[in-house]
Amino acid sequence: MEILENGSVTSPRGFTAAAVAAEIKYVGRNDFTIVYSKVPAQAAAVYTLNKFKAAPLQVTEQNIANGTAQAIVVNSGIANSGMGVEGMLQARQMSDWTAVALHIAKDDVVVASTGVIGMPLPMDKVKTGIDKVSRALYADGGHDAARAIMTTDAVCKEMAVQLRVDGKVVTIGAMAKGSGMIHPNMATMLGFITTDVNIDNKALQAAFKANIDDSFNMVSVDGDTSTNDMVVILANGQAGNTLLTEESPDFPAFKEALREICIAMAQKIAGDGEGATKLIECTVTGAATKQDARLAAKAIIASSLVKTAIYGNDANWGRIACAAGYSGAQFDPNKVNIFIGDVQVAQNGMGLEFDEAKATEILKQKKVKILVKFNIGEAEATAWGCDLTYDYVKINADYRS
Amino acid sequence: MEILENGSVTSPRGFTAAAVAAEIKYVGRNDFTIVYSKVPAQAAAVYTLNKFKAAPLQVTEQNIANGTAQAIVVNSGIANSGMGVEGMLQARQMSDWTAVALHIAKDDVVVASTGVIGMPLPMDKVKTGIDKVSRALYADGGHDAARAIMTTDAVCKEMAVQLRVDGKVVTIGAMAKGSGMIHPNMATMLGFITTDVNIDNKALQAAFKANIDDSFNMVSVDGDTSTNDMVVILANGQAGNTLLTEESPDFPAFKEALREICIAMAQKIAGDGEGATKLIECTVTGAATKQDARLAAKAIIASSLVKTAIYGNDANWGRIACAAGYSGAQFDPNKVNIFIGDVQVAQNGMGLEFDEAKATEILKQKKVKILVKFNIGEAEATAWGCDLTYDYVKINADYRS
Repeated sequence: MEILENGSVTSPRGFTAAAVAAEIKYVGRNDFTIVYSKVPAQAAAVYTLNKFKAAPLQVTEQNIANGTAQAIVVNSGIANSGMGVEGMLQARQMSDWTAVALHIAKDDVVVASTGVIGMPLPMDKVKTGIDKVSRALYADGGHDAARAIMTTDAVCKEMAVQLRVDGKVVTIGAMAKGSGMIHPNMATMLGFITTDVNIDNKALQAAFKANIDDSFNMVSVDGDTSTNDMVVILANGQAGNTLLTEESPDFPAFKEALREICIAMAQKIAGDGEGATKLIECTVTGAATKQDARLAAKAIIASSLVKTAIYGNDANWGRIACAAGYSGAQFDPNKVNIFIGDVQVAQNGMGLEFDEAKATEILKQKKVKILVKFNIGEAEATAWGCDLTYDYVKINADYRS
Repeated sequence: MEILENGSVTSPRGFTAAAVAAEIKYVGRNDFTIVYSKVPAQAAAVYTLNKFKAAPLQVTEQNIANGTAQAIVVNSGIANSGMGVEGMLQARQMSDWTAVALHIAKDDVVVASTGVIGMPLPMDKVKTGIDKVSRALYADGGHDAARAIMTTDAVCKEMAVQLRVDGKVVTIGAMAKGSGMIHPNMATMLGFITTDVNIDNKALQAAFKANIDDSFNMVSVDGDTSTNDMVVILANGQAGNTLLTEESPDFPAFKEALREICIAMAQKIAGDGEGATKLIECTVTGAATKQDARLAAKAIIASSLVKTAIYGNDANWGRIACAAGYSGAQFDPNKVNIFIGDVQVAQNGMGLEFDEAKATEILKQKKVKILVKFNIGEAEATAWGCDLTYDYVKINADYRS
């Protein structure tokens, strides 16, 4: 597997994209995009578990129930969430207009919105956006698409990888938006993955869902699960390989490549969290079960006390132990070893004398690794987060609209 | 029931207390205290659920397994947590020395510590502290005790209430420390309640544990559950009432008075959270179960996005809905009504046009009330938290020791 230079969601064969400034809410920047596959693609998606599931997600869920999709339409600025029946009608309309403009089946559209909760979409602008973008689609439009879905993300998040499947070159592209927005309610994670692999839907679902739990689902910026979170994958088969199934010899390689791109995107989202100055990566090993490792790793990277300590370059291992302790994970406190970078700070649940200067140097890096060894089993998991800073408070205490 | 002016843990008959500067870690302030009952008291306690349960809690749990205690010994500055076998020996020693100094049974001591995790107690200073304090106990020593358990709490938290049980005046006193500390790892909640009621242990446990779930357990400052959290109640029977049992006509009144004092102390802790400028009170009504109401209320007051919005005086109802949505509580998003103070901001899960200026005025108060109506059942719960501010980040990004 190799990472493509300048890769995007249009790197896989048969995908085009474009973006325009529809002025849904922002002015003077692109805020509306469509990613299009020239043939219907196998599709899979995961959605927020928030009870307030935004309307676009509900429409998407209905549309891809049959396992296929051909286009992704996304606006930034307004989330179309908390709008009741009106929101559902708007999301459905946005989907239908997209299908008509692209001459594709009505149930082959993925709809997503990100922005303020509780505001209606300006449907005339949505219509204009769809009409303009659908006529502007081009082969290298992925970069425009990735920028159009940003709200105030500081960094554009996109990439592509290639591998060989059945002797054919298969490309996987991805774009995501994370949590870096000055407007409240918008800490939405959206991920869109495209690939030209020829794959059956069952294998796609299997590869996708297993990887999501190890990547996008292991990210936390502030513990708040948005109403609009969604990750979608489209596989359009244009690579020309023999149909990939779970039994194919190359399925593990495809799954692994998909895993790598999902994890890389997850890291990009965490590192660009609101106000963040650092990416925190926490790995928990030696757990009795994968679930225990996940619980502990996520609790550690989500702990406000851990996050502020890392912002302050403080090798405060007690907070790491404390977060593991309340995570719900099963372990024996007397067997826990903790490392910050390569500096061991606790052994058997007790603090060690360690080189504070060296630990501080490690904590000053842009990526800080924490390793917690439970030493009772074989399971492990990694989670990604960011530090909690003055800017997080500033961004989120700011005006709403 | 009435609130006593200038009440403390020594307001109930038969309790004395004192404090000294033992220089455990702080210099120039009292950091060591004993609260003493002249007769053995019925005792009950609840402890942190953190897997890393600090040594003093484990010793206390052993000591009051028989249902009685006669003294509470507490130091601030060092938490005696994350110290393994050595910590257990130190906590046991602290307990034993206290018993000897006070001429009471070895298993009648409640031991508590709050401060930095991972440092040993200076046992010579602990010994000196015990010897000095045990000779200085006096009838109005409760205020000194409440101040000695503070770390950098901005406000001393104590009170007492009186009611009549069986015709006798019964007093309940309380002191607590919360989460306002410049040293990391110390967001410890300690609560100590004394009463002179004559009560059987079963009734005490019943009244105490039911109320803890509605008070101390409904507080969150930053979502981090300390290794040292503990709330203890001692009832020494000195009021002279006929033994109170769960069947006594006055038991509900005692339980209610205990509830009031627990809730008042919980509010004091939440309002004095690290860096806080406001107390947030969230009530969820109309839930299907008490557990659903609790989950949602706690998720709302614990949400970083809600907390920063309230710090910024932003009537951001979408964040409140969002937090309820991911809380795990069961409800129907289309039936939810949300109020900030007396301003309704959402109806049936959708935003309303509301008076932003009035909402901003409400949000500028020192206490902000949020009401969420699920409208599907009869259960309700209230939780207390505080806003998330620059000072929280400053305090917790600061140096460790």
